[in-house]
Amino acid sequence: MVREKGFWKRERVDEALNRLLGKIKVLGTEHVNVYNLNGRVLAEDIVAGFDIPRFDRAAMDGYAVRAEDTFGASVNNPIMLELAGSVEIGETPEVEVEPGKAVRIMTGAMMPKGANAVVMLEHTRINGNLIEVLKAVTPMKNVSRRGEDIKEGEVVLRKGEILQPQDAGVIASLGIDKVKVYRKPKVAVITTGNELVEVGEAIEGAKIYNSNNPMICNALLEFGFEAISLGIARDSIEDIRNKVSEALKFDAVVITGGTSVGSKDLVPEVIEEIGEIVFHGVSMKPGMPTAAGVVDGKPVFMLPGSPAAALLGFYTFAVPAIYRMMNVKIVARKWSRQRGILQGRVPSETGVRGNVRVHWQDGKVYPVRISGSGVLSSFVRANALLVVPEEREGYEEGEEVEVTLLRDVTEVFE
Amino acid sequence: MVREKGFWKRERVDEALNRLLGKIKVLGTEHVNVYNLNGRVLAEDIVAGFDIPRFDRAAMDGYAVRAEDTFGASVNNPIMLELAGSVEIGETPEVEVEPGKAVRIMTGAMMPKGANAVVMLEHTRINGNLIEVLKAVTPMKNVSRRGEDIKEGEVVLRKGEILQPQDAGVIASLGIDKVKVYRKPKVAVITTGNELVEVGEAIEGAKIYNSNNPMICNALLEFGFEAISLGIARDSIEDIRNKVSEALKFDAVVITGGTSVGSKDLVPEVIEEIGEIVFHGVSMKPGMPTAAGVVDGKPVFMLPGSPAAALLGFYTFAVPAIYRMMNVKIVARKWSRQRGILQGRVPSETGVRGNVRVHWQDGKVYPVRISGSGVLSSFVRANALLVVPEEREGYEEGEEVEVTLLRDVTEVFE
Repeated sequence: MVREKGFWKRERVDEALNRLLGKIKVLGTEHVNVYNLNGRVLAEDIVAGFDIPRFDRAAMDGYAVRAEDTFGASVNNPIMLELAGSVEIGETPEVEVEPGKAVRIMTGAMMPKGANAVVMLEHTRINGNLIEVLKAVTPMKNVSRRGEDIKEGEVVLRKGEILQPQDAGVIASLGIDKVKVYRKPKVAVITTGNELVEVGEAIEGAKIYNSNNPMICNALLEFGFEAISLGIARDSIEDIRNKVSEALKFDAVVITGGTSVGSKDLVPEVIEEIGEIVFHGVSMKPGMPTAAGVVDGKPVFMLPGSPAAALLGFYTFAVPAIYRMMNVKIVARKWSRQRGILQGRVPSETGVRGNVRVHWQDGKVYPVRISGSGVLSSFVRANALLVVPEEREGYEEGEEVEVTLLRDVTEVFE
Repeated sequence: MVREKGFWKRERVDEALNRLLGKIKVLGTEHVNVYNLNGRVLAEDIVAGFDIPRFDRAAMDGYAVRAEDTFGASVNNPIMLELAGSVEIGETPEVEVEPGKAVRIMTGAMMPKGANAVVMLEHTRINGNLIEVLKAVTPMKNVSRRGEDIKEGEVVLRKGEILQPQDAGVIASLGIDKVKVYRKPKVAVITTGNELVEVGEAIEGAKIYNSNNPMICNALLEFGFEAISLGIARDSIEDIRNKVSEALKFDAVVITGGTSVGSKDLVPEVIEEIGEIVFHGVSMKPGMPTAAGVVDGKPVFMLPGSPAAALLGFYTFAVPAIYRMMNVKIVARKWSRQRGILQGRVPSETGVRGNVRVHWQDGKVYPVRISGSGVLSSFVRANALLVVPEEREGYEEGEEVEVTLLRDVTEVFE
């Protein structure tokens, strides 16, 4: 029997979405290895178990000295120090720097006892077993102090961050090999229609190929979700009921087709039997007949059968709702470019491409202080990169600049 | 022995990269299923094997009629047609529409013989077995013609496209279940340094955790590449040589540490023995000591040990070079927002959010013609979306608008 065309409420997209988000249950958690956490949503705060650096270390290649020994040194008045050994990276120095002595040291190596500064290699000359110091250094000059980058007990990453490669760097540098994340959502995909034939099979008459199912499965993969295709449901209450019941073993369900009121709205009928229809009909083109429901806190997306409307409905409703299951709202996407007013001067050397780590928030761009190029935490504290082209000397405070986000900017629900 | 600090040429980033890209071999190909092609790079043109639609079909719910029979119909002068049956979607109609008859039809159903137009349901009244037509239709009104969306023989997607969910939709709609793509690059990751300890192990003295390796592995995953961690190489020619030789079984190699000229530049030494150093030293901050080489057409990235510089070097050199192995250059990223001047008027209904498919190129935005919301090919012909908010009636030709890219915009090398 052919039913006549009905009407649906045309609800605003944002209102429909917000009501849906309010009804979704958050997924459980699991632990993933630090080598394989990209894109996962953090379900715990990451707290530093020790200082980084763990020890005072050289920030430059040169000689570890007692700063006091170099006072007054200049090119015209070099001060001679006796070479007392060298410290390699990774090695706990056995040598101690006594007054009048110097120890060769590499960037990153542990400062030997007695030394409190590093004279840069460029400011020295070798003269047999003697080192000529050509420039004085103050105490702690060219030394990265213990805890300078991250302090023990500091929260380095908060619950709700979508984990990025730089986060893996910081987590690993804290010796953490596993972190707690929300489970990867498993989403079942059903396409409905008597007219559908699976790809790879022969086609005839008025049949068409099932294109929505592979399309939605790939869209799920794009966001790092797991896609489970349950194939085609025919246009009968029984067939749809069976497929939906199979689909509800997973975390969420996407169904395309069968939502148009009055033609064959069998899918909403089935969902209403076992759960709740949250909206049916939105003021969006294409995609007016889009619907969504919730069964036991699991979202069920009922997208129109027309492929363009189905894909738009997926991005508009399913993506935010599935992230809601991992407790986050995405405010701005990684790699997107954002504009903002620079809140401080950014100097850069002409002829060199500068990559300045900044924090972008609410149309403002804050330069992030960095104590050395080795300081990875700056890549976690900063959420964006400001590129200063070779031709520019930098940017002034108050200038409008364009930055590229280095991570998804998120908000946590709970 | 500690060697003294050397100097390297500071080459511009773009020049260094271009020289590297010129020396890289393209990977082989493989076939992937249409359910799992997201992010893969197409290695063949996709040609339509048949028209889409495959047959004339109704574009509206209503009645299939002979247009001539409705001429002169109006609300005040309805024309009566006799209901001769109905056609369901997916069904080859057995009924033929003879003069004076009408057949009930759903959007997407095959047009029955004899009929050449569809009267919309809204423009009819039912009167027993008679249909009152309240509005005349012209021939082919409300009919989607065979081949209207895609013509047999048409190239739908070209080699070098990075495949997206909407492409899966179009490919599946053509009945194609497998497509030829470039192999997924397998990239080996080595970190060098005597100071390194693997995450999860105990740490002491001047040791630090190996954070670069998990960071780079996650960065590879981010782009859908395969990451193979080969762990830590100690600072000896032998150890590095062994690890590199193991790594060269894969398609590309990322090594962090050991590039700084004069401190311990063992890695470039090893690469020079077996291949070619393409550049060593770039005018980029952080990351001056970044180097790259090629061994048998496989790129070897030698990134500084400092994590921030390593990650920047990865994005700046490794990502474009690895895409080069799949024959593409990425011009602009999916989801990035781009500005452009609208090359035609875009109307939209107030109170409804419009999603207009457009083609963005060289600062210009071209609206893409769409014959129906079901027309998926428009999502492949268009590469961007222009959202018209509920509050606006549309945009005028010549206005500057901001669009969101729906796919990576690429150029092919070969």
